[in-house]
Amino acid sequence: MLGRLNHVALAVPDLGAASEHYREMLGASVSEAQALPEHGVRVVFVELGNTKIELLEPLGEASPIAAFLAKNPKGGMHHVCYEVADIRAARDRLVESGARILGDGEPKIGAHGRPVLFIHPGDLFGTLTELEEV
Amino acid sequence: MLGRLNHVALAVPDLGAASEHYREMLGASVSEAQALPEHGVRVVFVELGNTKIELLEPLGEASPIAAFLAKNPKGGMHHVCYEVADIRAARDRLVESGARILGDGEPKIGAHGRPVLFIHPGDLFGTLTELEEV
Repeated sequence: MLGRLNHVALAVPDLGAASEHYREMLGASVSEAQALPEHGVRVVFVELGNTKIELLEPLGEASPIAAFLAKNPKGGMHHVCYEVADIRAARDRLVESGARILGDGEPKIGAHGRPVLFIHPGDLFGTLTELEEV
Repeated sequence: MLGRLNHVALAVPDLGAASEHYREMLGASVSEAQALPEHGVRVVFVELGNTKIELLEPLGEASPIAAFLAKNPKGGMHHVCYEVADIRAARDRLVESGARILGDGEPKIGAHGRPVLFIHPGDLFGTLTELEEV
């Protein structure tokens, strides 16, 4: 069922400083910042050839990464995202296996405009896991 | 300088249970477990097509992931590993940029038999980052 690793998301308190560090220290290819107000984040993409890192900074009052950064003020690893071909089939398999889907259990349109869901980290050994239909 | 994402490492308290969850809940392709006593871990690989996830369980008294699991008993995201072509050139650039290399600052032979180094997470916004020469 699992396809490619779509991205790894790292939360940072300061997207400009983080972009600069990734460029200067690591020689990384870092995109320009994009605001995604409907998802409560600003984001840059670190292109790695086989996949990408998303650096996320909170945007707005109800950012989904605000609580994470309050707990981890320096930033940290936030989630991984795997690709699936059929997100409803994936959802059904997860539910049958006893995994909890965050929110109301239905896929939503994610930051890339495709259907996504998030699995409760308590059901995958502490790792917040996103599935995206591609 | 940065090449591909070599792997994402997730620490888990119980490798057998984690392997089962990844197979059953996610339909993932999970390798057999390998003990790497010189690195203080047991590991399985979740193959994703473009990269892999390493699930790590502590092995022995001085496991490098023991402190992480003491702090995160359910497990969690431990580190990311990027490929570089020349690890000494990467090290020099990091040091010039003010980043701290863990240990004595020299590359070591990592779990895949290749030279690696770890960058202090405090210098990359809370994310422990490994570089591996390929």
